[in-house]
Amino acid sequence: MMTNVPHDPQARSLFDEMARWPIYDPHSHIDPHRPAARNFDEVLGYHYYTELAHSAGMPAELVDPSLPPRTRAENLAEFLKYIDNTIQYSWLLEIAQTFHGFAEDRITPKNIGSLYDRAEHAGDGESWDRTVWEKSHLEAVFLTNDFDDPLKGWDTKKYVPCLRTDDLVLKLHEPSTVARLRKATGVDVQDFATLHQAIGTLFERFLSKGVRACAISLPPDFVPLPAAPKRAEAPVRRALHQMDLRPDEHAEIRTIVFWTLAEYCADYRLPFDLMIGPIRNVYPAGVAGGRDLFDRRVSLYDYRALFNHFAGVTFPISTLSPDAGAELVAYSWIFPNVVPLGHWWYSNIPPYIAADLRARLQAVPKNKLVGYYSDAYKLEFVLPKFNMFRKILAETLAEDAIRGRGWSEERALELARLVLLDNPRRLFGRSDSESASVI
Amino acid sequence: MMTNVPHDPQARSLFDEMARWPIYDPHSHIDPHRPAARNFDEVLGYHYYTELAHSAGMPAELVDPSLPPRTRAENLAEFLKYIDNTIQYSWLLEIAQTFHGFAEDRITPKNIGSLYDRAEHAGDGESWDRTVWEKSHLEAVFLTNDFDDPLKGWDTKKYVPCLRTDDLVLKLHEPSTVARLRKATGVDVQDFATLHQAIGTLFERFLSKGVRACAISLPPDFVPLPAAPKRAEAPVRRALHQMDLRPDEHAEIRTIVFWTLAEYCADYRLPFDLMIGPIRNVYPAGVAGGRDLFDRRVSLYDYRALFNHFAGVTFPISTLSPDAGAELVAYSWIFPNVVPLGHWWYSNIPPYIAADLRARLQAVPKNKLVGYYSDAYKLEFVLPKFNMFRKILAETLAEDAIRGRGWSEERALELARLVLLDNPRRLFGRSDSESASVI
Amino acid sequence: MMTNVPHDPQARSLFDEMARWPIYDPHSHIDPHRPAARNFDEVLGYHYYTELAHSAGMPAELVDPSLPPRTRAENLAEFLKYIDNTIQYSWLLEIAQTFHGFAEDRITPKNIGSLYDRAEHAGDGESWDRTVWEKSHLEAVFLTNDFDDPLKGWDTKKYVPCLRTDDLVLKLHEPSTVARLRKATGVDVQDFATLHQAIGTLFERFLSKGVRACAISLPPDFVPLPAAPKRAEAPVRRALHQMDLRPDEHAEIRTIVFWTLAEYCADYRLPFDLMIGPIRNVYPAGVAGGRDLFDRRVSLYDYRALFNHFAGVTFPISTLSPDAGAELVAYSWIFPNVVPLGHWWYSNIPPYIAADLRARLQAVPKNKLVGYYSDAYKLEFVLPKFNMFRKILAETLAEDAIRGRGWSEERALELARLVLLDNPRRLFGRSDSESASVI
Repeated sequence: MMTNVPHDPQARSLFDEMARWPIYDPHSHIDPHRPAARNFDEVLGYHYYTELAHSAGMPAELVDPSLPPRTRAENLAEFLKYIDNTIQYSWLLEIAQTFHGFAEDRITPKNIGSLYDRAEHAGDGESWDRTVWEKSHLEAVFLTNDFDDPLKGWDTKKYVPCLRTDDLVLKLHEPSTVARLRKATGVDVQDFATLHQAIGTLFERFLSKGVRACAISLPPDFVPLPAAPKRAEAPVRRALHQMDLRPDEHAEIRTIVFWTLAEYCADYRLPFDLMIGPIRNVYPAGVAGGRDLFDRRVSLYDYRALFNHFAGVTFPISTLSPDAGAELVAYSWIFPNVVPLGHWWYSNIPPYIAADLRARLQAVPKNKLVGYYSDAYKLEFVLPKFNMFRKILAETLAEDAIRGRGWSEERALELARLVLLDNPRRLFGRSDSESASVI
Repeated sequence: MMTNVPHDPQARSLFDEMARWPIYDPHSHIDPHRPAARNFDEVLGYHYYTELAHSAGMPAELVDPSLPPRTRAENLAEFLKYIDNTIQYSWLLEIAQTFHGFAEDRITPKNIGSLYDRAEHAGDGESWDRTVWEKSHLEAVFLTNDFDDPLKGWDTKKYVPCLRTDDLVLKLHEPSTVARLRKATGVDVQDFATLHQAIGTLFERFLSKGVRACAISLPPDFVPLPAAPKRAEAPVRRALHQMDLRPDEHAEIRTIVFWTLAEYCADYRLPFDLMIGPIRNVYPAGVAGGRDLFDRRVSLYDYRALFNHFAGVTFPISTLSPDAGAELVAYSWIFPNVVPLGHWWYSNIPPYIAADLRARLQAVPKNKLVGYYSDAYKLEFVLPKFNMFRKILAETLAEDAIRGRGWSEERALELARLVLLDNPRRLFGRSDSESASVI
Repeated sequence: MMTNVPHDPQARSLFDEMARWPIYDPHSHIDPHRPAARNFDEVLGYHYYTELAHSAGMPAELVDPSLPPRTRAENLAEFLKYIDNTIQYSWLLEIAQTFHGFAEDRITPKNIGSLYDRAEHAGDGESWDRTVWEKSHLEAVFLTNDFDDPLKGWDTKKYVPCLRTDDLVLKLHEPSTVARLRKATGVDVQDFATLHQAIGTLFERFLSKGVRACAISLPPDFVPLPAAPKRAEAPVRRALHQMDLRPDEHAEIRTIVFWTLAEYCADYRLPFDLMIGPIRNVYPAGVAGGRDLFDRRVSLYDYRALFNHFAGVTFPISTLSPDAGAELVAYSWIFPNVVPLGHWWYSNIPPYIAADLRARLQAVPKNKLVGYYSDAYKLEFVLPKFNMFRKILAETLAEDAIRGRGWSEERALELARLVLLDNPRRLFGRSDSESASVI
């Protein structure tokens, strides 16, 4: 029973074709050592369910990590009735139906037990990972790797490394960051010169492991200004030695480290994913993963120096505030190195996706459109999230391109294939002999 | 002749069912002593008509309060031809058709006279109020009561008191505010301690009369910071004695009074409606009620301290700038105590309502959705405004839920009923033994 | 083969009628001495194609002005395959099909040569201009005239002068501005008094040539404050003599010159087109015309003093950032002298147009709606751009007015005619005996 398919016959036809294609997923939080969920608590533990249930009235204690997994799942199931209107709930149902043979149309306190039993795969280990991978027809899933991730023990062609750099830029002053950096690189980081050297070592290690992107999430008030190494020297040294920092020194450190990362991306021809907008811990009493929000007063104009200076670096960009989507269309239409990347988090809701997608499809060169990524923590979510996007893409193309502009179905599918597969493969498909440029 | 019904048969079927339900209206400006319009000038006097006609070229003098009501109506009728495209005009027509047997499809200088005659109910008094109440199938209509409203002389189960607090927060320094406060409470307000006591007295009096919400409208630059009573003492005293205030002192006063109100809402478990955005008197030469606008650069991020500190207070929130709607979706999805409340004023236009509603229905827990309120000044407006919303709700559910996700009509109506009736009844249905929490 | 027509039969019927009407185009960059394109390079040279192709990967050198026109066209054709999804490409195709008998559905490196040959009209001169004018059924096209334009040599009833004032406000300190001003007016501009006199002379000269609007584009951080002539005197003198200026002096100069222009618009009853938002040269390495962007953090609230003070001046307003469109609806609904003007540049994309248009049609008095302008540099673009708008207008009226509110087709067409023809004719149709007011 699959209900998340287009109702319109023309869109349905496009969707059915797309549903046969492999999935290339350029951003996720999958753990390559444990990609699929071993039980249904790992599915329900996705922050969307715990935070929506908490928002609906569930005390956070009911999903406390210390509880047995089955208890957490049963507790959460009591509150699913309040969120069964949400699109996130529809992913849950599609997972239960697709991967666990669930035949009902709502998950309730009554049926959670049998569903939990059906979804129990602790004993199957990698075989279950393979089942989900194949059933989802996955081709590649990008990871989010800490800079000190050993990057060992999995097939990096399937689970593609991505160097996540938030800690280096935003938390350099924390003791654990420096300690991890020294350990990961073997460089005795003491000042900007050795910090620079250590970051280079990180890039080289990641490159040797097949990294395809550098990534960072940035708060709305971050402004990437050109580096001023001389000026940054003292603050960087103070940060590395955990001395007190003034706000302007914090800003100086973020600026120089971020700029240094962009320089390495230029040197090593690596796309630099910018995920713009989140403010961490706005709601400290929230559940894990459900505490971050944003300030909608943000503009890509603040990024002009970066885009201009690093003309050779491709910047795939996601914006968090839904109302910032139109600005990203304009910047992607003008800057060759700015690429709109998927639909992120608070913007990953069908009406926002549809509005952004319609505009991108009509105003951004088609070879720059990177349709979607799952942002998933468990492999099971990749398929329903991509299906949600493929449905909207099919409906948009049926309405705007086929009915609206007289395109053939074939031409519409060509564009869909570019957006879903060819562009992300090419854009992130760097090798030493190949440019990371968008064409 | 009813034209404001959905064209799509599936949506029409949903709408027809909703149209049989009672209306629960959690925010209006109805005068409970004179709820229905006694004549058609009181209908046409709604600021939407005078301001739109004025914007279309009508001199403000033509609707001056000193003119005879019939003359004002005749004058305004000359300009209705310029605004018969607007959704506000459609409410007017629906009122004329539903309540006054008007059979034409436009109100013109030619037929305004006979319509005025038909709508004359000065002699019918309360009987006409009852007629409109019953014809509209009203269950409850919330008021907007000044803090010194005697709250006497009407059935507070039908016309529900709501404590409006703009004057206390924004105009404490004006002599009339303090005078009214002293008179209403019997407290000799001279400093912060006595101010605090007086506000407590107000809450107790309103509670004894069945108040169901505290409410305030706040300008876009207001930032609710935690109270600092010590620091506020001097400015508050200066304000209460009409001494000159520096801007930072004004800010201090607003902050402490607002925070104090939130504390009382917490103590007395009263929802605190926040209506965020308006700037008063941006266009001083406008008609009465048609002078306020907004600055779209506003963010709920400024409200984080409030939402965190008062976890036990429910904040139903309306935003004025249409482009701020998506941020409210995100904050309602995360904060248990943030609830999206209706569609307000400049955002109360079908395309904005539809965009906001689609997102809320797919991303906010369904037990937190408070669909709509009329904001009406005269009872006749409640029905057409709710019908406008019910039409959009029906169309959205038909498209996104029934066709889009395979829901049954029954399930779609369940959600509609929650949004229109069950949620506002429960959320605002406090009693001494019952929590104001959202579930 | 015309594919950009509505698919819905009701909308098609409206569109077909609108397509028979003349076009009144209140803003363009047409050169009246050379209005139509003499060859296809002049069509492909429109910044949309060069900037989108450049964004898609085309080196800017391939369309360098020093290259032979045919080479530039051939070079660009290599990259059109990357932008054939865009709405801008659809205008290109419609031009090729409508004016040059192009029968294929894509412009490729293979067929660009023959298309170039077909579009060669260097030898036809004004006869080709007339052909395009008549085939497009044009009635009037507004120009963008530099303040020192001699305004000679064309029929100003067809190509209507519009005084563009960016240089005076934003570049007064540049030597060439003062020199041009002195030359154009014969006034020995040395201080604010003589500057004021010279601007008056400009207005009189433009008025004698049938000017119908004053216009300016303003950056998002511009705030029009009331003039303070005394305070501005020193900075203006320093600017006129190219002395160094502090940022606050620059601001003072912009303020006083802008306010002075508004005063002359009031005196001479000329609408003042405000095009709000662009920041020049954000991407300096871009192609000509493709370097400007915006900061979305902009608000019309900054314009309140202007709108209030100049109640007698009509301000047709375009906003650049698509997300600012809803604020313009609100300001147009309240201020009699604020008029929403068309859909501009980065906002001129069907989904943004549709969203803005739906709201304007339902919330702004219909006598204030100025539907569209081409912003074109060559005459061939007026028709496809207006057709794009007429299609969206037809679809919106079919859905929201005819199906949504039960209007007759006749009534919908009445509104379309007002929006497309009657309003711009009346609003910009000033003569010495006629007011520029909106009704």
